[in-house]
Amino acid sequence: MLKPETRDRLKSVSTATICTALFKRGLRNQFVQDVQPLNPDAGTMVGEAYTLRYIPAREDLNPISVFRDRGHPQRKAVEECPEGAVFVIDSRKNPRAASAGSILVSRLMKRGVAGIVTDGGFRDSGEIAKLDIPSYHNRPSAPTNLTLHQAIDINVPIGCGDVAVFPGDVVVGDCDGVVIIPAAIADEIAEETVEMTAFEDFVTEEVLKGRSILGLYPATDDRTQEDFAAWRASANR
Amino acid sequence: MLKPETRDRLKSVSTATICTALFKRGLRNQFVQDVQPLNPDAGTMVGEAYTLRYIPAREDLNPISVFRDRGHPQRKAVEECPEGAVFVIDSRKNPRAASAGSILVSRLMKRGVAGIVTDGGFRDSGEIAKLDIPSYHNRPSAPTNLTLHQAIDINVPIGCGDVAVFPGDVVVGDCDGVVIIPAAIADEIAEETVEMTAFEDFVTEEVLKGRSILGLYPATDDRTQEDFAAWRASANR
Amino acid sequence: MLKPETRDRLKSVSTATICTALFKRGLRNQFVQDVQPLNPDAGTMVGEAYTLRYIPAREDLNPISVFRDRGHPQRKAVEECPEGAVFVIDSRKNPRAASAGSILVSRLMKRGVAGIVTDGGFRDSGEIAKLDIPSYHNRPSAPTNLTLHQAIDINVPIGCGDVAVFPGDVVVGDCDGVVIIPAAIADEIAEETVEMTAFEDFVTEEVLKGRSILGLYPATDDRTQEDFAAWRASANR
Amino acid sequence: MLKPETRDRLKSVSTATICTALFKRGLRNQFVQDVQPLNPDAGTMVGEAYTLRYIPAREDLNPISVFRDRGHPQRKAVEECPEGAVFVIDSRKNPRAASAGSILVSRLMKRGVAGIVTDGGFRDSGEIAKLDIPSYHNRPSAPTNLTLHQAIDINVPIGCGDVAVFPGDVVVGDCDGVVIIPAAIADEIAEETVEMTAFEDFVTEEVLKGRSILGLYPATDDRTQEDFAAWRASANR
Amino acid sequence: MLKPETRDRLKSVSTATICTALFKRGLRNQFVQDVQPLNPDAGTMVGEAYTLRYIPAREDLNPISVFRDRGHPQRKAVEECPEGAVFVIDSRKNPRAASAGSILVSRLMKRGVAGIVTDGGFRDSGEIAKLDIPSYHNRPSAPTNLTLHQAIDINVPIGCGDVAVFPGDVVVGDCDGVVIIPAAIADEIAEETVEMTAFEDFVTEEVLKGRSILGLYPATDDRTQEDFAAWRASANR
Amino acid sequence: MLKPETRDRLKSVSTATICTALFKRGLRNQFVQDVQPLNPDAGTMVGEAYTLRYIPAREDLNPISVFRDRGHPQRKAVEECPEGAVFVIDSRKNPRAASAGSILVSRLMKRGVAGIVTDGGFRDSGEIAKLDIPSYHNRPSAPTNLTLHQAIDINVPIGCGDVAVFPGDVVVGDCDGVVIIPAAIADEIAEETVEMTAFEDFVTEEVLKGRSILGLYPATDDRTQEDFAAWRASANR
Repeated sequence: MLKPETRDRLKSVSTATICTALFKRGLRNQFVQDVQPLNPDAGTMVGEAYTLRYIPAREDLNPISVFRDRGHPQRKAVEECPEGAVFVIDSRKNPRAASAGSILVSRLMKRGVAGIVTDGGFRDSGEIAKLDIPSYHNRPSAPTNLTLHQAIDINVPIGCGDVAVFPGDVVVGDCDGVVIIPAAIADEIAEETVEMTAFEDFVTEEVLKGRSILGLYPATDDRTQEDFAAWRASANR
Repeated sequence: MLKPETRDRLKSVSTATICTALFKRGLRNQFVQDVQPLNPDAGTMVGEAYTLRYIPAREDLNPISVFRDRGHPQRKAVEECPEGAVFVIDSRKNPRAASAGSILVSRLMKRGVAGIVTDGGFRDSGEIAKLDIPSYHNRPSAPTNLTLHQAIDINVPIGCGDVAVFPGDVVVGDCDGVVIIPAAIADEIAEETVEMTAFEDFVTEEVLKGRSILGLYPATDDRTQEDFAAWRASANR
Repeated sequence: MLKPETRDRLKSVSTATICTALFKRGLRNQFVQDVQPLNPDAGTMVGEAYTLRYIPAREDLNPISVFRDRGHPQRKAVEECPEGAVFVIDSRKNPRAASAGSILVSRLMKRGVAGIVTDGGFRDSGEIAKLDIPSYHNRPSAPTNLTLHQAIDINVPIGCGDVAVFPGDVVVGDCDGVVIIPAAIADEIAEETVEMTAFEDFVTEEVLKGRSILGLYPATDDRTQEDFAAWRASANR
Repeated sequence: MLKPETRDRLKSVSTATICTALFKRGLRNQFVQDVQPLNPDAGTMVGEAYTLRYIPAREDLNPISVFRDRGHPQRKAVEECPEGAVFVIDSRKNPRAASAGSILVSRLMKRGVAGIVTDGGFRDSGEIAKLDIPSYHNRPSAPTNLTLHQAIDINVPIGCGDVAVFPGDVVVGDCDGVVIIPAAIADEIAEETVEMTAFEDFVTEEVLKGRSILGLYPATDDRTQEDFAAWRASANR
Repeated sequence: MLKPETRDRLKSVSTATICTALFKRGLRNQFVQDVQPLNPDAGTMVGEAYTLRYIPAREDLNPISVFRDRGHPQRKAVEECPEGAVFVIDSRKNPRAASAGSILVSRLMKRGVAGIVTDGGFRDSGEIAKLDIPSYHNRPSAPTNLTLHQAIDINVPIGCGDVAVFPGDVVVGDCDGVVIIPAAIADEIAEETVEMTAFEDFVTEEVLKGRSILGLYPATDDRTQEDFAAWRASANR
Repeated sequence: MLKPETRDRLKSVSTATICTALFKRGLRNQFVQDVQPLNPDAGTMVGEAYTLRYIPAREDLNPISVFRDRGHPQRKAVEECPEGAVFVIDSRKNPRAASAGSILVSRLMKRGVAGIVTDGGFRDSGEIAKLDIPSYHNRPSAPTNLTLHQAIDINVPIGCGDVAVFPGDVVVGDCDGVVIIPAAIADEIAEETVEMTAFEDFVTEEVLKGRSILGLYPATDDRTQEDFAAWRASANR
């Protein structure tokens, strides 16, 4: 389970910093490729992955009437995704039909879900952009998902944007996009990236004052370490 | 001819809803792939398709001087496209040179054309974004169209974003992108989607109040039908 | 060296107009394909190209510790790029890892660099979007550049977005994207495009008044030339 | 279960004819896109689908030692795939690392498996090309599958080359590639395509004698029907 | 009309040499991108372009029954393409459904057509590979063309593999692929490339004897010119 | 320098086995993506990398006359590439114009060069396929390299098919494609892969006799180790 303090810490750091922390551990491929936020002002998204797997739609199995079945995996998943989780859809990187639309995303929002990610596209993208739930996709796509996608599995390991996503992995999203943190290291990544962020904020301030990055970033000059210590003290970080 | 009431109805619905209505009729491939609005606040675009076909440019046939010919198909089309129509360009999904620029789009706007769509790109995209005519393309592209495109045919059937577009088809655009409605079914699609939209608006309201989608969307619970009837009465829709 | 008056002239014209002037000289491939501004309101970018070449990263050569070397080409380049130049990175059109992040871009801004362009992606894209330095990339990308890129050469001829970029070429960027002007013709292109822009502004005004483009654009009617002369006189251009 | 006579019939027809029979039933998307035979002379492949699902590989979960686990899904699947079945791998259309190599394909061959298909690539492609088991992939790929793929599920519904593949569907492969026949209609498709093939063989003979296709293909001339009846009688088909 | 001696000359030269001759005239974009011969041993293909234009298929307009219409453009074109011409299809670079199959290609062969080119794919590719008519496509594709393509126009200017093809242009194909020579310069290109080929054959012989390319290719050494003159005399070329 | 025994060892192993040995060392990205042999029967290619870097061609700098300059980097490189080396070209993965043609490849062959690799395409591909020098490209391409490529640097670090190639790295090619071994570990990779190949050959023999892969591959059963020892003894390996 994602600890509240880990969630809070991850809300205060960037996907870029997390990617660097993962890179140091040999995890080079955790950034979901080619998705973007519909509502970049919705704030940093953090939550455990709850997944939905799509396969290509076969016409005879996907008439519009399938949604009348309350057990249809897409609808079932929307009602069962836990509060605080992030709903992650494997759309096989295919945005030519929608992964979901504004009604389902609204329902997720109302249920307290922390965000939604697809490597395909959303329909009603203008509506979703106004909702208060961080949402990430490749590009808008008006056709109903039945056109190309069949929801087949709930909460199994999937691929999303070329990244492995296991249920329970921690998903973080910001302006740059979405990163997947393996569940087992979420706490340590959160701690480490909070530290890294303090240093990066210090560096940014120094750079904006006109200081050279050499010796500063990374901190190969002794003076940098000293200045950073002083900055932390004065900034209370 | 596009009836005024059909135009009005289509202005009040979304491309997503239209795609679903077309899907029910077996038309799964009417959404123009991978184009986006330059001016998403310009409102829903509706009009009959007036088409322009490009082929690859051969260097000797496309010096800058070709535009001195008043019969050049691109310029001729801009002056002849009917008021209220949508100007649709087959740029072979190639945005590496422009399909058109702000002067031509301005002229279309002044002539009362309802919108412009290309599966390539526009130059002067910053200017076009400020014009009061809905415009859709793949991405900005500064090179003159002569670099890669030769305008060859006016108002013939074309492909645009992997969709068949016949002159007279009804073109609708919103935030999600652009959909092509076959001329023969435009009236019925308009009627049906207005009805669908009423239901979707009702569902959205209910969802935002916290109601589950099960039994509501689609309306498999009897209560949903009753609630919807009451909503329509009270909302005058 | 880029003359101040050439810089000023190029700041007043568009990449679209420059592309047309280059096209007339047989240069059809100077527009950097598929990059977009992060901060489109930062104004037109003009400067001489200062280049950085990346090759694919080999894991053993690119641990996080490489940045401790003050001679690392990426960091060295950021400190040595001349004031007024544009920093252009050959990222092999690969945005799956970052080309740079907000700290380096901030440093470039503080050093008076005129802009930055990559055919890959930037991390910290939300931060960069707020900086007062025109920045162009393909899409946001959070992973550290060491994941996929190794900086290898400073200020050599490179490719960027399928365009040849030689150090000293003049780089211009606006809403549409980025164009590369060969150094030897920058002055004449600047002069010519200022003239072309005057005419295009005149045409735009006329079109917005309702005039047909036939005979006006291009100016095949004698009256157009006369009207333009009058317009220039009255508009002081 | 695939009936022996259905298997035999399908061995005598082409994927093109099967695609047409499926098209007539509204199934337009059953051809596995962009795979090719390594050993086109190995004959037509027919068998029921036995599937293996890959997700992207996470580095810490996929060291070379994972294959020491006898329960590793890739190895387990190779030993459990039924005789006469076709082994179909969902490699997410990613041929940048191998889906399998010659040792595993040899084992499948020895176990009597009817063929193997991946929408990724095989390593040891030169060896596989010499084996007597029909094999289809996108392109050769030497890196071990652990580089980019983690085998995760056995015999679940998957996507392969943009087609839905359910365990038990009937897979047919020839020079053109691979088609997936839904299990429930395999018998009727087999019967119908044998009939269609007889007609196509007749047409081909006639065309090679110099006859026009008009009235012949399709058989809109009465004479064509008569000639075909005579041909069937004399050819014993 | 293509002169017999021009046809003969072009049969003796390569597409590479033709591309160089076109390049010298400023025509840089005449090579059909990404098509390959199905039957590379069928010899060099030469003929005037006869074109067929496809647009995306709309489901309601493209049931299997459309081929019962003798006026269907695809079938009509196959019967009307002139002897000695090359049948060139604009399939919008989409090989996901067939452009044609072996029966139509057989009919073209019997009618004396000189070759067939599509920037899509052929079905029955194994059969076509055995026919004695040069055939070029992107890759095999079993689905009937109605799945994705609607034949719409005969013998109009088209794009094929990103090249402009006008009816009557001269089409040449060999192992490398297909090049389009504008009709007006076919004679001069034929003459020039025969000369170039003589020199290249001489150079190849010299290189295979061990001579350096410097001074030889191109012939910047006087001795090269002399040796070539002697070679022509002795080789009767 | 590449030792003769290392060269010999690498000639006896496959690129697949080498990729696995590199993977064990954390090098996951050494396989040149999407190139294929023109002459797969030419045998395994082994040699040290000698590189040529291309950038996009600017029209004014790349008329056909540039080849008259004996110092033109492409021609110079062909004459200077050491005997036994592999000539590797960074064509920016662009096969739309040729990287080289049969005359240059013939010259390399005569000079004793061990092979040639481009991530673009070769012209005269039919001729090259008959030469006795292993050659790898993406696809045939007839246009002269001047159309899109300018040779700019000799023997610098490059990217080829998404792999870093440093001069002196050891390049190995077989049916699957091409792999790059960092110079410093070429000897140990050669030794290790010869051992691995012995085991794989033993496994293949066992599998072809009908043995299960479980316990055999990898050798987790004690009996496998014993059988392998016996096999080596009897097979003299």
